[in-house]
Amino acid sequence: MSTATDSPTDVPAETPPTPPQVRDATLASALRRHLDGPFGDVRDHCRGLDPATFGPSSAPLPMDEHRARVTSQLAALAAEPFAAQGFPEHQGGTAHYGEAVAAFEMLGHTDLSLFVKAGVQWGLFGGAVSLLGTSRHDHLLPRVISGELQGCFAMTETGHGSDVQSLLTTATFDPAGDELVVHSPEPAARKDYIGNAARDGRLAAVFAQLVVDGESRGVHCVLVPIRDEDGAPAPGVTIEDCGPKLGLGGVDNGRLLFDHVRVPRTNLLGRYGDIGDDGAYTSPIDNPGRRFFTMLGTLVRGRISVAGGAGAAARSALAVTTTYAVSRRQFAAPDSDVETTVLDYRTYQRRLLPRIATAYALQLAQHELVATMDDVLAGRTTSEQDQRRLETRAAGIKVLTTRHATDTIQECRELCGGAGYLWANRLAALKADTDIFTTFEGDNTVLLQLVAKSLLTEYQATFGDLDTAGIVRFGARLVGGTVIERSAARGIIQRLVDAAPGRDEDVTFGIRGTQLRLLREREEHLIEGLARRLRRATAPGADAFAVFNATQDHLVDAGTAHVERLVAETFAASVESCRDPEARAVLARVCDLHALTTIERHKGWYLEHDRLSPARAKALTAVVNELCAELRPHALTLVDAFGIPTGLLTTEMSGTA
Amino acid sequence: MSTATDSPTDVPAETPPTPPQVRDATLASALRRHLDGPFGDVRDHCRGLDPATFGPSSAPLPMDEHRARVTSQLAALAAEPFAAQGFPEHQGGTAHYGEAVAAFEMLGHTDLSLFVKAGVQWGLFGGAVSLLGTSRHDHLLPRVISGELQGCFAMTETGHGSDVQSLLTTATFDPAGDELVVHSPEPAARKDYIGNAARDGRLAAVFAQLVVDGESRGVHCVLVPIRDEDGAPAPGVTIEDCGPKLGLGGVDNGRLLFDHVRVPRTNLLGRYGDIGDDGAYTSPIDNPGRRFFTMLGTLVRGRISVAGGAGAAARSALAVTTTYAVSRRQFAAPDSDVETTVLDYRTYQRRLLPRIATAYALQLAQHELVATMDDVLAGRTTSEQDQRRLETRAAGIKVLTTRHATDTIQECRELCGGAGYLWANRLAALKADTDIFTTFEGDNTVLLQLVAKSLLTEYQATFGDLDTAGIVRFGARLVGGTVIERSAARGIIQRLVDAAPGRDEDVTFGIRGTQLRLLREREEHLIEGLARRLRRATAPGADAFAVFNATQDHLVDAGTAHVERLVAETFAASVESCRDPEARAVLARVCDLHALTTIERHKGWYLEHDRLSPARAKALTAVVNELCAELRPHALTLVDAFGIPTGLLTTEMSGTA
Repeated sequence: MSTATDSPTDVPAETPPTPPQVRDATLASALRRHLDGPFGDVRDHCRGLDPATFGPSSAPLPMDEHRARVTSQLAALAAEPFAAQGFPEHQGGTAHYGEAVAAFEMLGHTDLSLFVKAGVQWGLFGGAVSLLGTSRHDHLLPRVISGELQGCFAMTETGHGSDVQSLLTTATFDPAGDELVVHSPEPAARKDYIGNAARDGRLAAVFAQLVVDGESRGVHCVLVPIRDEDGAPAPGVTIEDCGPKLGLGGVDNGRLLFDHVRVPRTNLLGRYGDIGDDGAYTSPIDNPGRRFFTMLGTLVRGRISVAGGAGAAARSALAVTTTYAVSRRQFAAPDSDVETTVLDYRTYQRRLLPRIATAYALQLAQHELVATMDDVLAGRTTSEQDQRRLETRAAGIKVLTTRHATDTIQECRELCGGAGYLWANRLAALKADTDIFTTFEGDNTVLLQLVAKSLLTEYQATFGDLDTAGIVRFGARLVGGTVIERSAARGIIQRLVDAAPGRDEDVTFGIRGTQLRLLREREEHLIEGLARRLRRATAPGADAFAVFNATQDHLVDAGTAHVERLVAETFAASVESCRDPEARAVLARVCDLHALTTIERHKGWYLEHDRLSPARAKALTAVVNELCAELRPHALTLVDAFGIPTGLLTTEMSGTA
Repeated sequence: MSTATDSPTDVPAETPPTPPQVRDATLASALRRHLDGPFGDVRDHCRGLDPATFGPSSAPLPMDEHRARVTSQLAALAAEPFAAQGFPEHQGGTAHYGEAVAAFEMLGHTDLSLFVKAGVQWGLFGGAVSLLGTSRHDHLLPRVISGELQGCFAMTETGHGSDVQSLLTTATFDPAGDELVVHSPEPAARKDYIGNAARDGRLAAVFAQLVVDGESRGVHCVLVPIRDEDGAPAPGVTIEDCGPKLGLGGVDNGRLLFDHVRVPRTNLLGRYGDIGDDGAYTSPIDNPGRRFFTMLGTLVRGRISVAGGAGAAARSALAVTTTYAVSRRQFAAPDSDVETTVLDYRTYQRRLLPRIATAYALQLAQHELVATMDDVLAGRTTSEQDQRRLETRAAGIKVLTTRHATDTIQECRELCGGAGYLWANRLAALKADTDIFTTFEGDNTVLLQLVAKSLLTEYQATFGDLDTAGIVRFGARLVGGTVIERSAARGIIQRLVDAAPGRDEDVTFGIRGTQLRLLREREEHLIEGLARRLRRATAPGADAFAVFNATQDHLVDAGTAHVERLVAETFAASVESCRDPEARAVLARVCDLHALTTIERHKGWYLEHDRLSPARAKALTAVVNELCAELRPHALTLVDAFGIPTGLLTTEMSGTA
């Protein structure tokens, strides 16, 4: 029963008096240094790039013009050091992987078509040649890095996107000609949505079922020339144009069909499965499934880069909108002639400030991810377990960041009213361009299931291997052990959690350890319940599909809870590591806002599972409102700290501030 | 404390075996008749319109071409009877208001630019002349109806959108010349985002502060020629082009600035405030605030039409996506060679089917709204109370339907993966074009606050007039009395609620009366709590702004709860009225799914307020899952029943079904 005393009237009715708006350059600069993370120099270099060359066009261009513009921007980008940084020295690179990803992330503030086009050329195509190829392919990479040789990453087919293991394209070894015959056996085998295919690509890294001596060896990657020097399609190759899209108009997505196209045997990118001079297939990995996922795993950089670009685009939108929100006024307060700044309205604060907080959280989580990737690619971390954990974390952060970007840019568009709908104010392009990020490089819903499954089954072990007690131990180990491995942060997090009151005591939302404990509890409970349900799939007579399918939403929730906890812990550790006292104080409140709005989003779950009482759940809403009011004067400083390159946000709207 | 028995493992683990997919033309036809509502003949007529003339272009057009195309489509549309239906006979119309709105709603399935352009010409501009003008303006309307005289509705200014009462443009009466001098005194007074202004408009209905004899009389509307016959700007009028936008590329939005532009006194649309031949201002409404809101209220049709178009666009997206979802397969089930149809996955069902159910609910609510509007405009209902209730309901349904459209089209885009991103499959245009619907014709967040305030204060009375007991009585009267006035439906709803178990008994989600009772309880509780909080604003010494601002999110919740309850009740009454037994059985399940997902969305609130126990809240999720599985075989039939005109959805993607 609800009574008068637990009604919303309990919430403090008065907003605390708003301090005057602060735009504190010193604080912004300290926050920026912290937010910039380990590759701040690279970011500063990118901030100095000429927006006239690399910036977005001021108006939407016709598709052909836009494609041409992006192609020439890519050529200009090749003169920068970033492409080379993504490759090892023996392939013509400089092996600064973290720097390369940080630089590409900064491209997320420009035209996202350039970001994607660069990602296709150097990340996906170049990455495939570099990481799946052998020494016989190394000679190609200098021309890939320079942009002289443009390529495609031809994985997705019309009939198979998420289920890449079931691709239909075949690459059949013909010992007579010592060739591979690449073929699209049916319309569903058509390679689809392939970036660089419709206009610029010359060579495609084609994923196909490798058939040697009549035996299928699973999906492998083969280099297939698709155009000659003059740009005409190669014999047997049919190229179609995907045509206009919702966004990313500067990316020439196309379709490829192969009619018994013959390429030399040595075009097989054979690092994980090769055909020798004797025509025999060999692989360092016996299990075909493990071989396939190992190959896919090497391509994790693409997913990490997508997360980075999405995060940058969301920050651009937040900066544009905050600039608008502190200058736009509407409606005078009662008995006043002065119109109220829209950011002083509670609903406006609630819609904008938690998203700024989450942008901080995801940016810091991205640094952690990129640093881990840097360790793995540079060979400082070599265990298969570390590689798998990197993949899981990359998948999870890709989901959260791309979801955040799409939702945030949409909210920003609405918060700017009619001005947000005009092309000139950039939100339109940011929105249209990042939309597909939720589904490419892995559909978000599918990825969350992969995250949850990989947590339960490290290395794709079968579910039957864990009994109930094992699952519980496993869950505890997961939460206690696998996160933030690479620093002293694990200890910090544990100390914060240990210092918080226990579950049976009253929840005080301002205690960092309590925030983290609540997020941990949700993850643990979801994973344990999931493991119990999935074990039924292996019971005799069980309809495995029905059991899996019924737990699908549970998998998605568990995957989400895992990544949310991980991101919040990274943020908490980052606050602890901030040495500038003023910046640290503000960061701490931003961290509170992020963590508490994450918990608030799952309020129903916490109440259902008796982790929050109704009274505490209501109090949570009041605490979040107060935090928003408290951070409101810092809003401009917080987005200034994003350090978005000058020249990229001088829009009609933000120019009014 | 959570225990094993209340963990998610309680949820039935097995999905019921899915019956084979049904595409039942007879059932679809019966459902369509029901969904078509009172103006089915008009809809059928629109279904026969030539898509070659009225359909969207197959590729995005450059802005100028798109504008030209839509202008010629508008001319073709003028040959149809719909424009005339929106005006009374003495103004050259045929006075079939409901039919006119139903026809325009069907335009929501074509190019939304045409929908908006038609809405500007006939709904907003024509509506202003028709409803705010006097007999001296009637002669203009035949040329407005025929499209010969194209016009603008110049209300919004750069500085004022939501707060229309504070517009800065002035219209000052000059007795010497018997003229009105229309002027933009500062840059913020610029009329902005005005449809038809950049290219086609000749005459603008300009909203301005009317000044007579040195006294400001508040906002009135004045006709101002903005272009001559040749299309050149009229003297003193500056016209700017808003340029490209996120969507609606075929609408020529522009900006207008007036430099002491003189028009005859009789250009004042003087129905609610006029200047006589003697130069004296007279008005049938003494209170300036009431006068202003009465003028605005006559324009309710625009808001209703926006809701209709948004609903239609969402149904287009749902039909495209469902067609995809029943044919797209991905991943084979364990131990199976057959790949699973994506709509058989639980997460997919959860993302798609509740949105189809809500599309039904909103379509039926729209009929109720249009029928009420028809009564008011045709003079069958004349009380000011009925007019105000129509405005409140229109605002609320506009919010829910435009929010539904934006969220649903986004979800559909993601559910279709890469295919959803291609222009050819229409989701891109639907998404970009309907985005602004959430902010134009009233920003959704502002409108929800208006809904809540008007509930509390019929006719804008001050808050102080109600004491606590009065508020409670008022809330009860609201819920028990004001809804679905115009039919016998109120009795039906009350019977359903009375037949349900009371609050203190166990909740059984399948009982319709229980569903409605839960929605009522939420509304009542929120409104009562709100009234108590707002009364503080009138206490001596209270900081009125601080109190209002602190309750802003509460206002938004209360407004939402009101409209959600209203929509669910309309759906429930509509099910009861369906005479086809098979259609009624399916409708009943769709109504369950809509009502229960609405309740589920507010699960946290129900738990917080002890209206659902944790166990029942968990059971609710299981019930919704089962409903989705139960409706899944009917998915195609359900979207076939939308009756989307042939030729508008023959996309590359849906053609694969």
